[in-house]
Amino acid sequence: KMASSNAKAANTLKILISTDNHVGYMEKDPIRGEDSFITFEEIFRHAQNEEVDFVLLGGDLFHENKPSRRCLMRVMEILRTYCLGDRPVQIQIHSDQAKNFHSKFGRANYEDPNINIQLPVFTIHGNHDDPAGDGGYTALDLLSVANLVNYFGKPQSIDDIKIYPLLLSKGTTQVAIYGLGNVRDERLHRTFLQQKVRFVQPEPTHPDGGAEATDREWFNICVLHQNRARHSEKNHIPESFLADFLDFVIWGHEHECLITPVESAGSNFMVVQPGSSIATSLVEGEAKPKHIGLLEVLGTKYRFRAIPLQTVRPFVMDEIILRETGLNALDAQIDAHMQEILAEKVAAMVATAGEQNAALVQDPRFAKLKLPLIRLRVDYTDFSTCNNQRFGQRFVGKVANPNDILLFRKKRVGGNEREGGC
Amino acid sequence: KMASSNAKAANTLKILISTDNHVGYMEKDPIRGEDSFITFEEIFRHAQNEEVDFVLLGGDLFHENKPSRRCLMRVMEILRTYCLGDRPVQIQIHSDQAKNFHSKFGRANYEDPNINIQLPVFTIHGNHDDPAGDGGYTALDLLSVANLVNYFGKPQSIDDIKIYPLLLSKGTTQVAIYGLGNVRDERLHRTFLQQKVRFVQPEPTHPDGGAEATDREWFNICVLHQNRARHSEKNHIPESFLADFLDFVIWGHEHECLITPVESAGSNFMVVQPGSSIATSLVEGEAKPKHIGLLEVLGTKYRFRAIPLQTVRPFVMDEIILRETGLNALDAQIDAHMQEILAEKVAAMVATAGEQNAALVQDPRFAKLKLPLIRLRVDYTDFSTCNNQRFGQRFVGKVANPNDILLFRKKRVGGNEREGGC
Ligand SMILES: [Mn+2]
Ligand SMILES: [Mn+2]
Ligand SMILES: [Mn+2]
Ligand SMILES: [Mn+2]
Repeated sequence: KMASSNAKAANTLKILISTDNHVGYMEKDPIRGEDSFITFEEIFRHAQNEEVDFVLLGGDLFHENKPSRRCLMRVMEILRTYCLGDRPVQIQIHSDQAKNFHSKFGRANYEDPNINIQLPVFTIHGNHDDPAGDGGYTALDLLSVANLVNYFGKPQSIDDIKIYPLLLSKGTTQVAIYGLGNVRDERLHRTFLQQKVRFVQPEPTHPDGGAEATDREWFNICVLHQNRARHSEKNHIPESFLADFLDFVIWGHEHECLITPVESAGSNFMVVQPGSSIATSLVEGEAKPKHIGLLEVLGTKYRFRAIPLQTVRPFVMDEIILRETGLNALDAQIDAHMQEILAEKVAAMVATAGEQNAALVQDPRFAKLKLPLIRLRVDYTDFSTCNNQRFGQRFVGKVANPNDILLFRKKRVGGNEREGGC
Repeated sequence: KMASSNAKAANTLKILISTDNHVGYMEKDPIRGEDSFITFEEIFRHAQNEEVDFVLLGGDLFHENKPSRRCLMRVMEILRTYCLGDRPVQIQIHSDQAKNFHSKFGRANYEDPNINIQLPVFTIHGNHDDPAGDGGYTALDLLSVANLVNYFGKPQSIDDIKIYPLLLSKGTTQVAIYGLGNVRDERLHRTFLQQKVRFVQPEPTHPDGGAEATDREWFNICVLHQNRARHSEKNHIPESFLADFLDFVIWGHEHECLITPVESAGSNFMVVQPGSSIATSLVEGEAKPKHIGLLEVLGTKYRFRAIPLQTVRPFVMDEIILRETGLNALDAQIDAHMQEILAEKVAAMVATAGEQNAALVQDPRFAKLKLPLIRLRVDYTDFSTCNNQRFGQRFVGKVANPNDILLFRKKRVGGNEREGGC
């Protein structure tokens, strides 16, 4: 029978999904320094407005393994502002929390009677904020001991990984969340091949339930932070490696926003790749509109909605092939003419970015966001390069990255190249 | 009339006082690495056992301006363990909290309805954990945004300092706490001389009360972190600089434990110098038994009790003058004979330290504390030095600092010398 609208809401788990926030990225840049913080806060505003049950993050919350004190302060201020409060938490946790969490306190923050959490955050670590250095702590551990996030999915060993899911329920809906924090791709690839990565499914919840009944009861989510794109045979994780009983996979680490869930090739689950919430390299994949996702689960059915981010600095990318511009390499004033052509092209890109500004939230606090990121690839085959910094001088005050607008390439390179890590 | 015992307790403010905890000091030393954490936790055990109303710290909570992640984790774990809980906080705050505290949230942690504090901690900063670097934050700010401590007493400017006291009451007892975090001594000295340090007394609390009545109502405490000993004319703060209306001054930064309050020379207040809770240099002042203090205030009367710390590594210091040992500088085997004499002396010191162990808490977790710190000053006038590391080999496993037992001096130096900062 059809549940009433109220009952439906009471049983619908709403999860805000985001990844690769890279908070602190370029924090000392006078123009771009605030970007990562502004968008991180926007994400929590959405969480608040949507009244989600919790936020699920896919790793690389911090850009630096050792975030600056200022960066830690800002993140803690934001989390404290949005996560503490009186809105009742409607989820319950059924798993062995000592197996899920790695802090001395070993339980979800909203279960601590000494703190009033209204918005739980669950996060795995990425490669940028992985547990390195003394004591094997990550900056996420600091957020965790401060009771601001629930850090889970830390593999106990690289060679033998048991993933104990978070088992969460809201009303009649039950989700199991299998978290796997970043491990070096090659190592994890090998561990998968050796069948040493185990997704530990929950025991039947009803004493008389069989395994089959149990499997059907849980909506099985996996969140991981690995290469998804095939770079070489072993430094990525094929989707087919993941447990077949999964329903929904959230793929972190890849910065390109592919926010529409797609059916996995060869597996039964859906995959969403939210992408980073800030562009950390000026490549094609980062130029797409940035989104976060709202996943609603009722029973074992789900609905997914993309939420466009409204505080992401406009980023326009284009390409020019000098040989096709009519420039003459033997021209005595080739340098000046080339720069003229490039400047014209960049000016057009800035205009395009201006149109993107319409998507930006209108808020005087964020006025600096209007300066766009511009990246023009220049195929200079048969020509010479020019000085990027000097060229950019004329765009100071018009673009956010005047020092590296141009990227000179001898030959056109395919769209799959990457600069910098994710 | 005499108040009943119950009413007396309800009006008696109990404050645990400690300073210079230097948490993280030598944290990588395989023998001494845990010392600072163990004693920091002991202090909070005392706070719990004595059921104090709050803990007041005098600066240098952290040894390093940028504590390691592990160190931050340990401190936050300890604070979270002892400061959160259900014991009701019985103090009330009457001052303008935005003037007292420097966090974005601008209020005492126990007033935050989202967190259940049972033991408030108020702290100023020292020179080791002063607000330096990007954003002017100190590691104390991280503890503060995590709602674990109340960081106060940060001067707004070095040249014009207004100290707005914390105004706290419990029942009928009212205390004003004037906090002044560390400022470079010479600068502060000058600011005092220019009469630009103001202790801002509270407005009358009763609309019809006069200033005189008000002054009498508050028990006025000052906590600061500066040189007290006169090093040169300007690099210390004379007690006479402090406001004359003060009742009780807690002097941080000086590591020597002078736990009995003494009347200030020339002023009307009492001064207590709790000293560090861990020896950070092997000098006479640090060899005295370490204490914290319990200050009880009822009305404008106080009682002070010294609490000996029971987890402080034994530290024995002595001196030997080679000329007085009968050693002969012309002896062909002078090196061997000298080392023999020194080793004998050190062995005796280790035995003395063994007696001190009786004061150590008996707990197998702290077994490592039994290895004492030994420092022997050697006046080697007319003789040569020997290699400290090599000499110490024979005391490995018997002392905590085998590499720097001996301190060679040509002439006897007075007891006032210092090594390292406080
Ligand atoms: Mn990554
Ligand atoms: Mn990333
Ligand atoms: Mn100091
Ligand atoms: Mn000190």
